[in-house]
Amino acid sequence: MTAEKGSRSWVESANGHPDFPLANLPLGVFSRDGDEPRGGVAIGNFILDLRAACEAGLFGGEALSAAQAASGNSLNAFFALGATARKSLRGALQELLGEGNSQRERLKGMGESLLQPMDRCQMHVPAKVGDYTDFYVGIHHANNVGKLFRPDNPLLPNYKYVPIGYHGRASTIDVSGATVKRPNGQTLPPGASEPSFGPSKRLDHELELGIWIGQGNARGESIPIGEASGHVAGFCLLNDWSARDLQAWEYQPLGPFLSKSFATSVSPWVVTPEALEPFRCAQPPRPEGDPQPLPYLYDEQDQQHGALDIELEVLLLTDAMREKGLPAQRIALSCTRNMYWTVAQMVTHHSVNGCSLQPGDLFGSGTLSGSSADSLGSLLEITQGGKQPLELASGETRTFLEDGDEIILKARCRREGQASIGFGECRGRVIPASS
Amino acid sequence: MTAEKGSRSWVESANGHPDFPLANLPLGVFSRDGDEPRGGVAIGNFILDLRAACEAGLFGGEALSAAQAASGNSLNAFFALGATARKSLRGALQELLGEGNSQRERLKGMGESLLQPMDRCQMHVPAKVGDYTDFYVGIHHANNVGKLFRPDNPLLPNYKYVPIGYHGRASTIDVSGATVKRPNGQTLPPGASEPSFGPSKRLDHELELGIWIGQGNARGESIPIGEASGHVAGFCLLNDWSARDLQAWEYQPLGPFLSKSFATSVSPWVVTPEALEPFRCAQPPRPEGDPQPLPYLYDEQDQQHGALDIELEVLLLTDAMREKGLPAQRIALSCTRNMYWTVAQMVTHHSVNGCSLQPGDLFGSGTLSGSSADSLGSLLEITQGGKQPLELASGETRTFLEDGDEIILKARCRREGQASIGFGECRGRVIPASS
Repeated sequence: MTAEKGSRSWVESANGHPDFPLANLPLGVFSRDGDEPRGGVAIGNFILDLRAACEAGLFGGEALSAAQAASGNSLNAFFALGATARKSLRGALQELLGEGNSQRERLKGMGESLLQPMDRCQMHVPAKVGDYTDFYVGIHHANNVGKLFRPDNPLLPNYKYVPIGYHGRASTIDVSGATVKRPNGQTLPPGASEPSFGPSKRLDHELELGIWIGQGNARGESIPIGEASGHVAGFCLLNDWSARDLQAWEYQPLGPFLSKSFATSVSPWVVTPEALEPFRCAQPPRPEGDPQPLPYLYDEQDQQHGALDIELEVLLLTDAMREKGLPAQRIALSCTRNMYWTVAQMVTHHSVNGCSLQPGDLFGSGTLSGSSADSLGSLLEITQGGKQPLELASGETRTFLEDGDEIILKARCRREGQASIGFGECRGRVIPASS
Repeated sequence: MTAEKGSRSWVESANGHPDFPLANLPLGVFSRDGDEPRGGVAIGNFILDLRAACEAGLFGGEALSAAQAASGNSLNAFFALGATARKSLRGALQELLGEGNSQRERLKGMGESLLQPMDRCQMHVPAKVGDYTDFYVGIHHANNVGKLFRPDNPLLPNYKYVPIGYHGRASTIDVSGATVKRPNGQTLPPGASEPSFGPSKRLDHELELGIWIGQGNARGESIPIGEASGHVAGFCLLNDWSARDLQAWEYQPLGPFLSKSFATSVSPWVVTPEALEPFRCAQPPRPEGDPQPLPYLYDEQDQQHGALDIELEVLLLTDAMREKGLPAQRIALSCTRNMYWTVAQMVTHHSVNGCSLQPGDLFGSGTLSGSSADSLGSLLEITQGGKQPLELASGETRTFLEDGDEIILKARCRREGQASIGFGECRGRVIPASS
C-alpha cells in the first residue's frame, strides 16, 4: 500500500480538498459536452481521464489493465477484476498524482486532455446495475418505523438474526442531480374505506450507504463471511426515495413496490475499500441480551475491523431558501456505525442460498438513522409519521417533501492523523407529478 | 393477419404438433454443439435458424429487420421493435413455412442449415432480463395462502384494488432444464425460539405465467391502460421456486427475499400475442360485492377481450417414478382465467408511478391456482401447508419437494375451430443443497 507514502498532490486543489484529496481517488463515469461517457478518477477539482491516461502511456502492467477496464462507459469490467487490480491502479494513481512525481511538469502540460475540470463535466451512474437490493440494517430506523406501527414491540423477531433485505428496481437508479418526479399511485386516505388515486402526499427521502459489488460468486456457491469484503468494489451515498402513503397501502404481504420503484439516487463517485481502510472500526457491541450472529454470519476479523466510521449528513434546500439566498439546511447528522450488520454480513447472507451476485450489483444499507432526534435519516422518523412538523430556519415547516424541495446527502470520514475524505454529494430535487 | 390463411406447413411435423404448429411460431434463443446462441423459431420438431434465413435472403423489408433483430444471442432488440415489426415477421414466416409456398423444395433442400432438429439443440433464456417483477394476481392462490395465516380474513384489504407485485431477482433466472439446487438458509423450526441454519425442508414450486415486456416507456411517463397490451412481447411458463420455511421467517416486513432468489425457471419459447389472439377472452366478472377497478386500471376493451384462456398443467416426476419407468404424474390442472387482473392492468399499474419498463423485463403472474382441489399451483396449497401429504400413484407421498423431484409445467390453448398451440415445457429438477 502506498496510501501513507505522501498525502500531497501536484494537483493543488486536491490538497486539503474536503472530498477528493490524494488519499481518496474514487472512480466514476463522466462525460463533457455530450461526448461519450468514460471512466475517470476524482482528484481535487478535476477528473483524471483514464482513457487519456492510458493512451498517454501513464500506466503499465496490472495498473494499465485495470485502468483500461475502467475506461469504458461503465465500471462493470473494472469491478469484475477484483481487489488486486484495483489496488494496483490505486498505487499507480498515487504515484502519478503525488507531489513527488518527477514527471509532474509534463503531466501538468497535458492540461485538460488529462485533467478535466469537474464543474464542466456531467456524471453518470457508474455501473450498469444488474440487480439492486435494499437492506434494512439501520437498527434505529427499524426501531423508529416499527414504533409507529407497534409501539410495544417495534422490532420483529427476525431482525436480530436476519440481515433483512428485499429486491429493488434497477431501471430507475439515477445519478445525483437527476430530478425526482413525484409519483402517482393508490393510497388509502385516513378514515376512508376505499383508496384514491393521485400524486403521493407523503414523499420522503432515506439516507443510505450504497455498496457496489465487485467480483461475483458462481451460481449455487455462497460467499463465506471471511471472504465477503473482498467482493465489494466500493461505496457511495444512496437516497431511497419513498412514497409513504403508497407504501402503507401496497406493502402487505409482499413488501414495498411502486412506493420505491419510481426513483433511487446514487452519488457518482465509487469510494474504494482502500480509501476507507483507515476508517474501519470494530462492529459496535450488540446490546445486552441480543443474540450472537449465527455462525455463517460470524467472523472475528469482520467483527473487529469490518464496520465503517463514516459521518453522514442530510440537507434540505427549499424553493423559499433559494429565493431568500439561504443555504441548504442540515436536517440530520448520522453515521455508519448505526448498522446492526456489517457489509460483509450483508454479502454473505445474500449469497447463502446460492444466489449469484454480479459485478455492478448495488446494495443499499437501509436508512441509517442514529438514536438522537437530530440524526434521523427520513422525514417519516423526524416528523413521527407526519404528526410533528419539522420547523426550518426559513420559517417554513415540513411534514413530507414538497415540490421544489431538494435533498442533499453528504458523507465524510475523519480520523486523527489521517487525511479526511468525502463522498461528494447525492442530490435530487422533487418536481411535480404528471397530471 | 395471415394466421387464418392456412394452417398446414410443408414442415410435416408441424401439422398436428401439440405445441408448435404453423399457428404458433414462438421465438427463442438456441445453440447447437456449443456454438454461439442465436434466435430461432419453433416449427414442429425443428427450429428455424433466423440468422441462416436472413443470410439466405428469405426475408425482405420490415420482416427482415425484425428477423435480424431476433438473430442475436438475446431477443431484447427484437422485443424493442414492438408489435408492427413482430407481426411483419410472423406474416413472412407463415408464408415461408406454409404448405403453399412455391419455394418449398428449395427450402427443404437447405436441410439443417435452415431447420435445426430441436432435440439436438440447447435452449437459453431468451432475453437478458433487466428487471424481473413477480405479481400475485392468482386470486385463489392468494385466498388459499391467506387462509393458512388468517382463516377468517384471507385476503388483505388492498388485494381487490392493487395488482400486488414485488421485485424479484434477475440474476438467477434459468431456462427450462437447469437443475435447482436446494437453498440453505435460516428457518424458525416449529416451537423453537431461535432460528436454525441449513437446507430448506419446505421447497415448493409455483405455477405462473411469464410475461415478456416489449417496447418500454419513458421514465416518468406511465402507460395508459388502453395501450398496455401493446407493450407485451410475449408469454412463457414460469416456475417461481419457493423455500416456504425461509419465506415464513424472513418475509416480514419487506417481503420474500432469499426464499425466492435462488432460482426462477422459464420455458424457452416466447409465445407471441398474435399466436394467442384466438385465445383471448373476457375478464371473468368480479364476484358480487367486489369493487370495480380504479379508472386508471379500467378499459372496456381490456375487460371484454384482455384476458387469456390458457390451460396450465403441473407434473411431478420423482426418482422412484423414473426407476419404475412410470411417467410424470399430473398434480394440477389450472388455467389463466384465474387471474384477478389482466396483463394490461399489471403493465399499467407497474408504470403508473413513472417506473420505466424496458424490453426484456420479465413479469411473473403469481401462482395460478384454480378453485378446486386438483387445480392448485403449489404444494403449499395442495398439502395445506404440509399437513395433508399428497399421495402419488408411485406409492410415495409428498408434503414438499425432495431431492431428485422434477417439476414440469405445461400450457396449451384449445378452442373449437382453431389449431391448438402449446408453450413447450418448463422443467426443473431439485438437486441436494451445498454442504
